[in-house]
Amino acid sequence: MKKDSVKVGIIGFGTVGSGTARILLEKGGLLKERTGLNIVLHKIADLDITRDRGFKVPDGILTTNVSDIIENDDIDIVVELIGGINPAKGFILKALQRRKHVVTANKALLATEGNELFQSASDNKVDIGFEASVAGGIPIIKALREGLIANSITAIYGIINGTCNYILTKMTDEKAEFADVLKEAQRLGYAEADPTFDIEGIDTAHKLTILSSLAYGIPLSFNELYKEGITKITSQDIEFASEFGYKIKLLAITKLSEGEIEMRVHPTMIPNNYLISKVDGVFNAVYIEGDSVGATMYYGKGAGDMPTGSAVVADIVDISKMLVHGKVSEYKGNQTERQPYKIKKIEDIESMYYFRFSAMDKPGVLSKISGILGNYNISIASVIQKGRRIGGSVPLVILTHTAKERDVLNALREIDELPVVSEKTMFIRVEGKGE
Amino acid sequence: MKKDSVKVGIIGFGTVGSGTARILLEKGGLLKERTGLNIVLHKIADLDITRDRGFKVPDGILTTNVSDIIENDDIDIVVELIGGINPAKGFILKALQRRKHVVTANKALLATEGNELFQSASDNKVDIGFEASVAGGIPIIKALREGLIANSITAIYGIINGTCNYILTKMTDEKAEFADVLKEAQRLGYAEADPTFDIEGIDTAHKLTILSSLAYGIPLSFNELYKEGITKITSQDIEFASEFGYKIKLLAITKLSEGEIEMRVHPTMIPNNYLISKVDGVFNAVYIEGDSVGATMYYGKGAGDMPTGSAVVADIVDISKMLVHGKVSEYKGNQTERQPYKIKKIEDIESMYYFRFSAMDKPGVLSKISGILGNYNISIASVIQKGRRIGGSVPLVILTHTAKERDVLNALREIDELPVVSEKTMFIRVEGKGE
Repeated sequence: MKKDSVKVGIIGFGTVGSGTARILLEKGGLLKERTGLNIVLHKIADLDITRDRGFKVPDGILTTNVSDIIENDDIDIVVELIGGINPAKGFILKALQRRKHVVTANKALLATEGNELFQSASDNKVDIGFEASVAGGIPIIKALREGLIANSITAIYGIINGTCNYILTKMTDEKAEFADVLKEAQRLGYAEADPTFDIEGIDTAHKLTILSSLAYGIPLSFNELYKEGITKITSQDIEFASEFGYKIKLLAITKLSEGEIEMRVHPTMIPNNYLISKVDGVFNAVYIEGDSVGATMYYGKGAGDMPTGSAVVADIVDISKMLVHGKVSEYKGNQTERQPYKIKKIEDIESMYYFRFSAMDKPGVLSKISGILGNYNISIASVIQKGRRIGGSVPLVILTHTAKERDVLNALREIDELPVVSEKTMFIRVEGKGE
Repeated sequence: MKKDSVKVGIIGFGTVGSGTARILLEKGGLLKERTGLNIVLHKIADLDITRDRGFKVPDGILTTNVSDIIENDDIDIVVELIGGINPAKGFILKALQRRKHVVTANKALLATEGNELFQSASDNKVDIGFEASVAGGIPIIKALREGLIANSITAIYGIINGTCNYILTKMTDEKAEFADVLKEAQRLGYAEADPTFDIEGIDTAHKLTILSSLAYGIPLSFNELYKEGITKITSQDIEFASEFGYKIKLLAITKLSEGEIEMRVHPTMIPNNYLISKVDGVFNAVYIEGDSVGATMYYGKGAGDMPTGSAVVADIVDISKMLVHGKVSEYKGNQTERQPYKIKKIEDIESMYYFRFSAMDKPGVLSKISGILGNYNISIASVIQKGRRIGGSVPLVILTHTAKERDVLNALREIDELPVVSEKTMFIRVEGKGE
């Protein structure tokens, strides 16, 4: 199938669609210079084709009819940028069945329905590019699939939701509370009107599902992943974390431990002197540890029209090279034949922990609490008791050595029933060199 | 040329050669699982094939005769890991002429002779992989050539020499002097017995030559690059930098300004709160700014057997995919047809500056010096004068706003001739949001 030009159709002319279209229109010459290929934006489908997107689109490109793309024999690559599960899934399946390659930024769809999509791509001998689905413009999928291909991945830690990182950074810098910062973030457009997907860790979990699948060659396993958002974090926790030398970040964590895979999203305390703890504001970073390469990290903007468009176009170029050079799909979905890995339940993980107890300011309280922790083999690394009386109780803060999550949950259940404990205990998992 | 197995020959069984061989031998199964390809280590040539490298090499692989690789019709990919210009260049050219693909980590060779090598590769329709030549295991070449292909690169700032970064980090953390830290680095194996290539910035310049060529589609232009090492940096400068809120790093800088390319390697003051200023020890980091993607950064180990081997094997895999899928070289050397960019002379750049004057502690000295700076349109941002008398003179430290390098050189020449100035003035270029 030798040809020198590749035709692209974009479905969805919103933020990322606009960025992608702009790059294809404005950088056609640069791309041709760099690759020898003519990559032509042939059609853009959207329900709204009249709103001004801030740049000129040549006549004849815009359409409100998605069939003009999916059923168009001229189009080689269909770019799905409408987001959400439906109708995106149907559009993609139809495009794949028509042997069109697909590029998408749709992490929610891939995380939850990706196995079916990749199977269909494989059946139809076409490819799905999804660089833009994780960490926006950072070429992290490429790093994982190609740059680090010689590595068994030992661990990935990601800050991959700009909204949460913005909120936690603001809370840290301004000693502000979650609700206030969220409101400001919404006002500034850094958080959606309904922020659930971001602040409850769902978006992060979608992206982690994809990273974990690539790292360990397992099917996309969104439902087996543990997730916890940032809504319960208080500025008091951030302050205590800082006294212990830590920052609080919403981390996506996947690692191989004892032959099982951990996949979890939760607020995490990370030592102040770790590079990833210094990734602030809306920026994303993904730390990948491989057995050959050691520690690596990738940093950049995780969202936005142009950064995400940059990743979409990189996928378009990769697929175009394949098309022109007559190569078939090189990647059979994400998973390998072998699937020896089990996914660990959150109760089975081991971690260090931060506990903030709301305990009455009475003699013997520390001894009672530490006694219960001891019964569950949870060993204490440090304690802060401030003596500040807040509503009759004082915060008692403890940092543990590595303990089993199951033991922690049981110990806290017992502690929270003590009459001297006035509120549910706050706990945050802690990463870093412990012991 | 459909085939399912690819045969690799490695020339040079030193540090990186050992890492590469180990990965190919130990990860053959993983690579097959991930790509479907059999990548077979067929031969390793070295003058010393008896020394124990710490792992077992199958019988029949080792040879002392490089022709067993270059002239071996079974071998598809020749991996050159002996380093240096000769005989590496001859080996590579011979391999290319025999239509073998080449993978190399040899930055010195590529920076100085690469134009000829890439031309030969292009003439012979084969590829040269060189991911391992810059920043070890970090997939930075791939990020630049593929992941960020949709971007015009506006600037690159790299910490790409682990030895220099280790020395500067130690000098900073321990308030130690250059010569002492260098000795310690040599003792620990972080610096060579003859450290010239590292500490004079030559190695960094080789790597910058490669990055700049990729970023701007220009021929490899090592001789037009400005370089300055770290030997003149004192712990006093590091301390003053810190008082102003800066760290000192050896930076490789390339950027496009006014239609011309800057390519320079020199010690640079970077604001404390920039992520790249926190890259310490032997670690490398490359900050790349693209017009679509914005700021991105890539971090990891820049040297070592396994990290560099990881990059070499990534190239081997990429080329193997091409071979098996019957695709010809996709990259005609590094440069595009268009070459509108001129490389800026160092005298023509603009920067902010740090000056440390060794001035007599006499009335009117500051006025005299600042008068001369004013005559050359160099405007002062801040001044530190400590009043500490060191050998009859006190250090007077000035941070400037953006100025022209030519003006700075002229002003300093004039100032250094003043009778009240006892030593040549130390100056360091300053990056960051100035004005």
